[in-house]
Amino acid sequence: MSTAAARLAAFTSALEIDQIPAEVVDAAKLHLLDTLGCGLAAHALDVAPDAREAMLEPGTAGPATVIGVKSGLPSADAALANGVICHALDFDDTHTGAIAHVSVAVVPAALAAAQAAGASGADTIAAIVAGNEVVTRLGMAAGSLFHARGFHPTGVLGVYGATAAAARLRGLDAETTTQALGIAGSMASGILEHLADGSSTKRLHPGFAAHNGIVAARLAAHGSTGPSTVIEGRFGLYNAFLGRDDLPIDEQLADLGERWETPRIAFKPYPACHYVHASLDATREVIADTPLKPDEIAEIVAITTEAGVSLVLEPLEAKHRPRTEYDAKFSLPYSVAALLTRGDVDVTTYIGDAIGEERVLDLAGRVRYEVKEYDTFPQALPGGIRITTTDGRVLEAELDYQRGGPENPMSAGDVGAKFRTNAELALSGSDVDGLEEAVLGLERLGSLDALKALGRARAQQGAVA
Amino acid sequence: MSTAAARLAAFTSALEIDQIPAEVVDAAKLHLLDTLGCGLAAHALDVAPDAREAMLEPGTAGPATVIGVKSGLPSADAALANGVICHALDFDDTHTGAIAHVSVAVVPAALAAAQAAGASGADTIAAIVAGNEVVTRLGMAAGSLFHARGFHPTGVLGVYGATAAAARLRGLDAETTTQALGIAGSMASGILEHLADGSSTKRLHPGFAAHNGIVAARLAAHGSTGPSTVIEGRFGLYNAFLGRDDLPIDEQLADLGERWETPRIAFKPYPACHYVHASLDATREVIADTPLKPDEIAEIVAITTEAGVSLVLEPLEAKHRPRTEYDAKFSLPYSVAALLTRGDVDVTTYIGDAIGEERVLDLAGRVRYEVKEYDTFPQALPGGIRITTTDGRVLEAELDYQRGGPENPMSAGDVGAKFRTNAELALSGSDVDGLEEAVLGLERLGSLDALKALGRARAQQGAVA
Repeated sequence: MSTAAARLAAFTSALEIDQIPAEVVDAAKLHLLDTLGCGLAAHALDVAPDAREAMLEPGTAGPATVIGVKSGLPSADAALANGVICHALDFDDTHTGAIAHVSVAVVPAALAAAQAAGASGADTIAAIVAGNEVVTRLGMAAGSLFHARGFHPTGVLGVYGATAAAARLRGLDAETTTQALGIAGSMASGILEHLADGSSTKRLHPGFAAHNGIVAARLAAHGSTGPSTVIEGRFGLYNAFLGRDDLPIDEQLADLGERWETPRIAFKPYPACHYVHASLDATREVIADTPLKPDEIAEIVAITTEAGVSLVLEPLEAKHRPRTEYDAKFSLPYSVAALLTRGDVDVTTYIGDAIGEERVLDLAGRVRYEVKEYDTFPQALPGGIRITTTDGRVLEAELDYQRGGPENPMSAGDVGAKFRTNAELALSGSDVDGLEEAVLGLERLGSLDALKALGRARAQQGAVA
Repeated sequence: MSTAAARLAAFTSALEIDQIPAEVVDAAKLHLLDTLGCGLAAHALDVAPDAREAMLEPGTAGPATVIGVKSGLPSADAALANGVICHALDFDDTHTGAIAHVSVAVVPAALAAAQAAGASGADTIAAIVAGNEVVTRLGMAAGSLFHARGFHPTGVLGVYGATAAAARLRGLDAETTTQALGIAGSMASGILEHLADGSSTKRLHPGFAAHNGIVAARLAAHGSTGPSTVIEGRFGLYNAFLGRDDLPIDEQLADLGERWETPRIAFKPYPACHYVHASLDATREVIADTPLKPDEIAEIVAITTEAGVSLVLEPLEAKHRPRTEYDAKFSLPYSVAALLTRGDVDVTTYIGDAIGEERVLDLAGRVRYEVKEYDTFPQALPGGIRITTTDGRVLEAELDYQRGGPENPMSAGDVGAKFRTNAELALSGSDVDGLEEAVLGLERLGSLDALKALGRARAQQGAVA
């Protein structure tokens, strides 16, 4: 029996786009589009200039595009900068089975490696899919065990996916890709200690993963070796990081190339805590049927899980009047009130003066909550809303599965709209159109030159860092 | 009470060479000299071209010197390449309390950061000492716990020392250095799975640590933040990697700036397994008193610990005739026979045709062993030799402490001689002299320009990779 790394490497190195089902290719392109949109919005709002500026410091040039940088950077540096900015708003995708942000590690590595190699769009898609499948399967075998120990799967597992993508785009054979994955295991890192004080290490993790994936593949190409038992070995990933030698990685790998996890990676429709999402979409359903003005609303009751209460509803008084942008993203009352007042929720909802608008806070103050148990939790993040109008009508809606996940997917149109809203903050209309067209037709492109438009992204005047 | 990272950062950012005792400065310079010699020898013998070639691939230029590369590289890339090559022969120093190779992570980061900053020799020494003290103290609080879990302290702890050194040379203040150490915690990595198949990840670990130290300091300088509780926090170094919240890091930090661990880092006099060293030096003592020709020797009995037997004496038949260079480094019979036959043991002892020389193997076949218990084991690595001559004389010597450690130190002259033997494999005599003079007088140099000589290192004709 081959080792897990050898099996993942064999899958990765041989994967061609014509072996990937059309709906998986489509999902990969949408996730690429979504990831870039998240990065463009974060750049426009200037929320995380640090990694980009650090990568610019050496003054080196290379083939890889960084969001907001007109000239190319060395591929590893570009992967780091893009990985960080694409995660900076926490608006990017998540695989709930692996409990990891996936695209934000894989995509920046794939794009930089593709640009360095002059690879085609078709090969870039194959590399992204391979990277996604590596991260999700390694994570699904472990569930929540990494979090329990204090490790962040986005970083610890992301590097394996980034390495697979970079190796595929260099055209490494199965044996050399195995070595690259073995090397990646000695670069796997990322602890959850940022939870103690909100440090930026959380958003650095996917950047490090993407960077290290480029370096691991490059080292392997030049003859460095890594252990093929890097996943299941005595001192491999699962034993060293988790103290476990009994995780079902064999089951996860048995149907590589048949079952595809890429379409099961969940999009985030709103740049807020995931526990807010179901109530937001329930509210959207209510007002689609019954348009409401704020002064027609007497009371709003959010229906949510016990876990949701502690994250986005309590302490209720503080959640009624969030003081920082970060607080606002974790306030269900503020988020729902913003939707009802402004008609939509996007990245601008949580930025700058928006969080202090009195007509929104006034409505937020009318939000209470009820706890409900759902069978679909924690696999999904369910919730609802019940609005009582001043004239006594009661309007309700509920979602068993939050929108954006595999059971309640965002449509291609939804994802495209999210992308445009995000990208238009940073780019001209023609660049937004050009990027969307390039990504959605990526399999037909001979190179990634169209993605150089990302370098023209601008931070908005007066953006709040 | 400040956090551990804050205390290490305060120590690091304020450390000036005139606060460091002269013997500590001298030790730091000798360790720097030794590290460079190990790297030069490894380059000459071409045992690990992979990392250097990988770092050269992007074709980028920068201020930092890489051994064997005439033009400068970006500092992070240079630190990676030098970290790998300096560890490639496993001839570099070790701190037995921290069970980590120290200089090989700290020195490459310090040199690259110093060259990038245009720092003085005095500041470079202060940065190296700070880095050494960070790694050794973090490691001494944990003892063998990292190894037990499968993590390699050279990598996992090395990044903190490399970060401290790089932060000091950028002139970061205490607060920003704390952030840098917090970021380093999310880059800390390195598993021991290379033990399964001898993969090169072992020698990559200090390279990654050195590289990441440069990047962590740079990110912090540009505003990225890391948790100040990165060491002792709920998901910090000790909890996440070791599952321990009770390690005596406070005790280790209480006498920062008073107790110095830099002079307690052990040099390796021979490029062989540490368990061979005491018997080699005992043999040296014997023949200093009584010169012996191989044909005057009837029998050789190595005196060693139980642990030594399993590593360097059994299976005895295989140890009598090592088949690979790696086997030869782990053969006490071969090593002692080489010393008796050739008069010395150095890197050439274990390279290429040398390991097949029949007159050495003939003598190696006359080596047996006896196990002895020593009080000084495992703190030190004791051992001895008993040689019976063909005319019936019995000549014996024994070391309770292997040479090179703090209890049986190598003299400055010994370290200098080791450096010259190593460096002369790769450099002209005048470059060797110039480098030695520059390093031993480093505190008086305004810059590290003299170290550019490292770039002129050449691989030997016919060197065996």
